[in-house]
Amino acid sequence: MNPKLAHFLDSGAYSTPALICDLDRVRENFRALQAALPDAAIYYAVKANPASPILDTLVGLESHFDAASIEEVRQCLIAGAEPGTISFGNTVKKSAAIAEAMRVGVDLFAFDSREELDKLAEAAPGARVYCRLAVSQEGADWPLPHKFGTDAAHARDLLIEAARRGLVPYGLSFHVGSQQTGVGAYQDAIGAAAMVFTDLRQRGIDLAMLNLGGGFPIRYRDEIPPIGDFGLAITEALRQHFGNHWPELIIEPGRALVGDAGVIVSEVVLACDRSADGGRRWVYLDIGRFGGLAETEDEAIRYRISAPGIRGKDQDMVIAGPTCDGVDVLYRKTVTLLPERLAAGDRVLIHDTGAYVTSYASQGFNGFSPPEEHYL
Amino acid sequence: MNPKLAHFLDSGAYSTPALICDLDRVRENFRALQAALPDAAIYYAVKANPASPILDTLVGLESHFDAASIEEVRQCLIAGAEPGTISFGNTVKKSAAIAEAMRVGVDLFAFDSREELDKLAEAAPGARVYCRLAVSQEGADWPLPHKFGTDAAHARDLLIEAARRGLVPYGLSFHVGSQQTGVGAYQDAIGAAAMVFTDLRQRGIDLAMLNLGGGFPIRYRDEIPPIGDFGLAITEALRQHFGNHWPELIIEPGRALVGDAGVIVSEVVLACDRSADGGRRWVYLDIGRFGGLAETEDEAIRYRISAPGIRGKDQDMVIAGPTCDGVDVLYRKTVTLLPERLAAGDRVLIHDTGAYVTSYASQGFNGFSPPEEHYL
Repeated sequence: MNPKLAHFLDSGAYSTPALICDLDRVRENFRALQAALPDAAIYYAVKANPASPILDTLVGLESHFDAASIEEVRQCLIAGAEPGTISFGNTVKKSAAIAEAMRVGVDLFAFDSREELDKLAEAAPGARVYCRLAVSQEGADWPLPHKFGTDAAHARDLLIEAARRGLVPYGLSFHVGSQQTGVGAYQDAIGAAAMVFTDLRQRGIDLAMLNLGGGFPIRYRDEIPPIGDFGLAITEALRQHFGNHWPELIIEPGRALVGDAGVIVSEVVLACDRSADGGRRWVYLDIGRFGGLAETEDEAIRYRISAPGIRGKDQDMVIAGPTCDGVDVLYRKTVTLLPERLAAGDRVLIHDTGAYVTSYASQGFNGFSPPEEHYL
Repeated sequence: MNPKLAHFLDSGAYSTPALICDLDRVRENFRALQAALPDAAIYYAVKANPASPILDTLVGLESHFDAASIEEVRQCLIAGAEPGTISFGNTVKKSAAIAEAMRVGVDLFAFDSREELDKLAEAAPGARVYCRLAVSQEGADWPLPHKFGTDAAHARDLLIEAARRGLVPYGLSFHVGSQQTGVGAYQDAIGAAAMVFTDLRQRGIDLAMLNLGGGFPIRYRDEIPPIGDFGLAITEALRQHFGNHWPELIIEPGRALVGDAGVIVSEVVLACDRSADGGRRWVYLDIGRFGGLAETEDEAIRYRISAPGIRGKDQDMVIAGPTCDGVDVLYRKTVTLLPERLAAGDRVLIHDTGAYVTSYASQGFNGFSPPEEHYL
């Protein structure tokens, strides 16, 4: 815990549950990613955390932005982002959203189907478009299978069709899955993309850009490779498949920029032994799956939880949220050690919750408001 | 589709996604439940849909209310509910919430652990309390296992302790699981509760009330037994286990009161074949798991979806939401037939979405706002 966060935590100037986020850490993460992949432009995945202090900070660092919706495009513009720095990266968009984005100056759109291409040709004539390839997501803790992306032959045909329809066939993208901990995941994906580049060049179309997507992991409970290892693996794969003629590169980090910048402070609502669960100890927090911790579904993302200032022996506990919903349980299989004497009214910290938490929070399930947000 | 909803749908006086809800249907459902279980007081499970037009309507019908949080208690009071008609039914409550509820006149609290009893004894001295029993939830489409409830011996001990601590040991509750389609589920639960009643009577404590919980199902895709069958099964079990000396009865319907009163209107954002999924057709709607359809997790609740006005042959399609999240897929295993020619811009109806939808909606994942709400 850095001194700035620790000082704010001590101040008590908040109610629980609250997300407290360190903008300096966002800056450090941005620079570390730039250093690891100096040839790639960083397009921040706004969906990870769209809070205006984060967007303002990233505009200050001359970041680019990956928007999932027209609402996110508007949020970026309000933060002062230039329209030319925004990519509309959702392959599924309403025509009205495409038209509005084009009108305000956004000129880069993702797609992966002929039907989306039809919409782009009509609502964004002349725009730059890139096609998303489906690639393996093995090794990702939060994979995104099947829903997006197409195969290489179809991507090639779609990009040829894009040119024919007056769009600029600008590049390719892929996504290796979120919280991807295997540095090798990029190797095959870059190889597959390179073949489409070659195929299209032989047909007279020179793609300019390769979008490597996001998915860069952060450390939750388990060790992960340092970001530099991802940079080396990607560089190596690019050399192998593109030689000395690299395309313009884009990366779309979200979690890797803001995840470890945030910590949730939560109050224990109840701690008790559950005879209905073989006598196990259950701890009910004032935030759960519907208060923002949605990525604990199937215990996929395993946050570190600590109870600073509470001494004594630890034991394994079930961690649950405050709602009456039976699925609002965070960790039941995952061993979670907390002090035996942890009791109602005590506070716990849920670490590395700067990304993919507040934006998921329900507007009021069981009457509970989304967590407060404080950016320092 | 009743004429009132159909007329509003035709009016176009809304943007998608929108929930449109018929308050007359809520009134009909209330009366049908009253008729099926005339001896039970209806405590509406506010969490199912806390919209003020629903609460106002139910206050008008002299409903009671089951609140999951102090925020829901406040919402009921704002709607004009008498504090004495409110049960604070979450077994996990902050002390401050208990104290505030007591202060405004709420006098009935659920619990299922000694630690919660400690809080009640301190923050709500003299209040009526009831203990939740853990019972089998086999047959429920949305079960709530392990998280709540205790065994019969512990419930008995806790209620004795409640009396000793100056609380009124008022009764027992159980919950057979949400969308419970088996009428037999109540038989064992009522039997188990009756044994605790007897046990306590022999120790000088006369419990007054049995809370049968909620869970009454509505028809989604599959037929369910009529509500009258649940009434008969419950009555039969009460006769068998309580003879002619029935306790005061409470039921806590949520879904059964408001579920089939609502319909979501959604726009198709994209319909395309997915080579990455063996060529299957995918339909992306402008509402998904994070826009409120949270109970489609693991395809547990299977809503009927229709595309009125679109003719032609049907085919099985995958139904997905609009976000960039890979888990935002509603139905992939569940066969969902929609017209082959369904295309971007078309509208579909997602039926029976009056309960457990809007309250789950995220405050803005991927920038998408919660659905509009219209109550007619």
